[in-house]
Amino acid sequence: MQSEKKQVEQITPMEEDFAQWYTDVVKKAELVDYSGIKGFFILRPYAYSLWENIQKVLDGKFKELGHENVSMPLLIPESLLQKEKDHVEGFAPEVAWVTYGGSEELPERLCVRPTSETLFCEHWSHIVHSWRDLPLLYNQWCSVLRWEKTTRPFLRHREFLWQEGHTLHATAEEAVEETKRMLEVYADCCENYLAMPVVRGKKTEKEKFAGAEDTYTIECMMHDKKALQSGTSHYFGDGFARAFEISYTDKENKQRFPHQTSWGFSTRTIGGIIMTHGDNSGLVLPPKIAPVQVVVIPVAQHKPGVLEAADAIAGRLKAAGIRVKIDRSENSPGWKFAEYEMKGIPLRLEIGPKDLEQGRCLLARRDSGEKVPAPLEGLEQSCFKLLDEIQENLFRKAKRNLEENTFAARDLAEVKLLVASRGGFIKTMWCGDVACENRMKEEAGVSSRCIPFAQEYLGDTCPCCGRPAKHMVVWGVAY
Amino acid sequence: MQSEKKQVEQITPMEEDFAQWYTDVVKKAELVDYSGIKGFFILRPYAYSLWENIQKVLDGKFKELGHENVSMPLLIPESLLQKEKDHVEGFAPEVAWVTYGGSEELPERLCVRPTSETLFCEHWSHIVHSWRDLPLLYNQWCSVLRWEKTTRPFLRHREFLWQEGHTLHATAEEAVEETKRMLEVYADCCENYLAMPVVRGKKTEKEKFAGAEDTYTIECMMHDKKALQSGTSHYFGDGFARAFEISYTDKENKQRFPHQTSWGFSTRTIGGIIMTHGDNSGLVLPPKIAPVQVVVIPVAQHKPGVLEAADAIAGRLKAAGIRVKIDRSENSPGWKFAEYEMKGIPLRLEIGPKDLEQGRCLLARRDSGEKVPAPLEGLEQSCFKLLDEIQENLFRKAKRNLEENTFAARDLAEVKLLVASRGGFIKTMWCGDVACENRMKEEAGVSSRCIPFAQEYLGDTCPCCGRPAKHMVVWGVAY
Repeated sequence: MQSEKKQVEQITPMEEDFAQWYTDVVKKAELVDYSGIKGFFILRPYAYSLWENIQKVLDGKFKELGHENVSMPLLIPESLLQKEKDHVEGFAPEVAWVTYGGSEELPERLCVRPTSETLFCEHWSHIVHSWRDLPLLYNQWCSVLRWEKTTRPFLRHREFLWQEGHTLHATAEEAVEETKRMLEVYADCCENYLAMPVVRGKKTEKEKFAGAEDTYTIECMMHDKKALQSGTSHYFGDGFARAFEISYTDKENKQRFPHQTSWGFSTRTIGGIIMTHGDNSGLVLPPKIAPVQVVVIPVAQHKPGVLEAADAIAGRLKAAGIRVKIDRSENSPGWKFAEYEMKGIPLRLEIGPKDLEQGRCLLARRDSGEKVPAPLEGLEQSCFKLLDEIQENLFRKAKRNLEENTFAARDLAEVKLLVASRGGFIKTMWCGDVACENRMKEEAGVSSRCIPFAQEYLGDTCPCCGRPAKHMVVWGVAY
Repeated sequence: MQSEKKQVEQITPMEEDFAQWYTDVVKKAELVDYSGIKGFFILRPYAYSLWENIQKVLDGKFKELGHENVSMPLLIPESLLQKEKDHVEGFAPEVAWVTYGGSEELPERLCVRPTSETLFCEHWSHIVHSWRDLPLLYNQWCSVLRWEKTTRPFLRHREFLWQEGHTLHATAEEAVEETKRMLEVYADCCENYLAMPVVRGKKTEKEKFAGAEDTYTIECMMHDKKALQSGTSHYFGDGFARAFEISYTDKENKQRFPHQTSWGFSTRTIGGIIMTHGDNSGLVLPPKIAPVQVVVIPVAQHKPGVLEAADAIAGRLKAAGIRVKIDRSENSPGWKFAEYEMKGIPLRLEIGPKDLEQGRCLLARRDSGEKVPAPLEGLEQSCFKLLDEIQENLFRKAKRNLEENTFAARDLAEVKLLVASRGGFIKTMWCGDVACENRMKEEAGVSSRCIPFAQEYLGDTCPCCGRPAKHMVVWGVAY
């Protein structure tokens, strides 16, 4: 849909003002609109369609692995939220409270779920009795609320869409395995569908989820070299099970506490897609999750046969399973080119009278700007091939960005110098003490992103305190 | 998942206590669990999977017709809710209010959406300018809150899942057409997927949606002859557009107000499926939306070859596109039979050593209890054929229930007699005056379900007041 006079206006170049570039893209690609409440964004059809494509990928994998979808209540009684001490401390300061139902004041405040561990636990305490009831592999697609002070489209909403997986297992080993398995599902989705390379690792004590024993994370690097935490997976041990009195009878007829996980992936990743692949002409979408993969633009469409040929081509591509759109409007081709560049559509297909004579069309790649003629015969295959190449190219470019902007440092001075001169991810050893983690934040302005699974040896001592090092950590400035 | 000692217990026969039968089925078929807040129900995997199958049907039709999914905020500022006078009067008494964000009291109360007309209108006021921007065909899948006094699983929740379609059109004609088109999509879903025959019609002034000019409805009859309103579609005229200052420039460059619709279909229909098809052994599910269509039960599974054959059969059916489950647990076949009857699985496939010798298996229909032997060769086709027959049979039985329990009446005495002696739907003429509608409620205990599209001539006068009749109305006792 577009107004006659709508112009594709210039967006702020990202080199000039990255934050403004981001905001411009989000608005002009018609991804979001602002609502009347700070931090509550409207996901317009184009953004929601992206989310649906991501949902399809993840939901399919979850189900393959035996997970079942459920729906839990939106509201949590205050007393229920308080059952697990660390959890309530982490979340209570940032929840929205319902205090009235109709015209009556409620006897107990109800919070709008910021996450649903407590709800799943209450339900499980009703239905888990025997080892035969385990594992429970649940997931839900919903929105959650966190009353953030500063908000930005996709990156930090007060309300955001996500999925939250919650599972319950007989043993700690099984639960840890699940935690890691689901992190790998997220990593696979990011790398192989969203073309976003990730660093996989474990969060430090300071950065882990409220109530978790361990939090695993995937961290992506944006164009501006900042980090985006793109998916997390938590191992809870039996802490919640004890707090909520969930127990089961094992095969030897003994009462046991089960072990629990949760894991989440949200619309914030759409912000990641924008900041990983976008450029100064707008969005650039990975073909595998692009709502439209090929846009067909008739050139000199008033000439005989052009519109008919364009329609026929669109029909052929659709029949081949390609997500295709044809723009038959009377806007100029120049307007259309700019519009679909802004929308990040991977391939633009131009067809005009001369092309028709020669039995060909032109294919323009959004990622490289390259234009190649393609014979109409076998066009489906040409499109498939180019879409694959674009997908790979986007991943390769993002991977290069990550690699070229990840640096190793041996001492705090070196860290500070790198932060000031280069930005990006900085790898150092670390003693494991939160005091050093805090010092890194105060003096160099970086937070620990994760303790990567792929550990490297960079030395024997902590760059902050000089004591023996326990881990290699990746640090960065985070969204 | 089941505990060793879990027994398939008897449920209350529906003839004895219909409400208790319903509650028993809902619990024992593992559809819902109760949460700690009245009216907030947990949809367990089996119920959610049913909902996903319904979603697939509807979402596919919406998209075919050009609708796009979006996501609107969960919360509505009080001032926004108040913009359309009739709308706020209808909903304000039953909404939940958020008054605190974190530890801070909010400057304005925010209500948890009971429906989202006001949010769509606010968004449209930002993006609609020209006739080229219309129509806007939007939908969202979400949950809404209505602070009901009495609640029952599926039928009346304080929070329920639904879809709400919202569309905006240049002309009244287009909007009315859309309103009726979407009602027909609901009718098609009910009749051809859920096997629930419907009465299509228009609501009276008294029963229409708050803020609507016209509300259309589909009404289904349950086993107990009560009515379930199963989907509604509303035409708003330009009332909201005026209140929210949404206008567009038409082709003659004049400012116009657009015309609006909304339509919704919710998880309450799952309650309808239960009460339309269920029996004293539990759920009976229409094959087209059953999470599991065929359950394979190995009989004497310790005997050589039985489990392998059962696995092979399940694999074949799955490959053919049938939703199949195999129960290899050590529970007795009798336990399994009762369990899957409770769950309403359309076809049970039994395979034991004798069947193997004879190259066949047994197929038991959930709807009729009939058991037929089927050769293993061509088993897929036998299953497809039986599933189709079950689907048709369920519709036919429900249609008969509707027809046999719909009665025509000429005067109020006759209405009262029918209500007392037969129940069901009662057709009468009606003058169109709300006073007579109220009298029908007070004296006969029935409310107007709709003014059916398929009008019949039953006489010239209103049975209440004797004045000239305007319409034929269907009355009933509603859930």
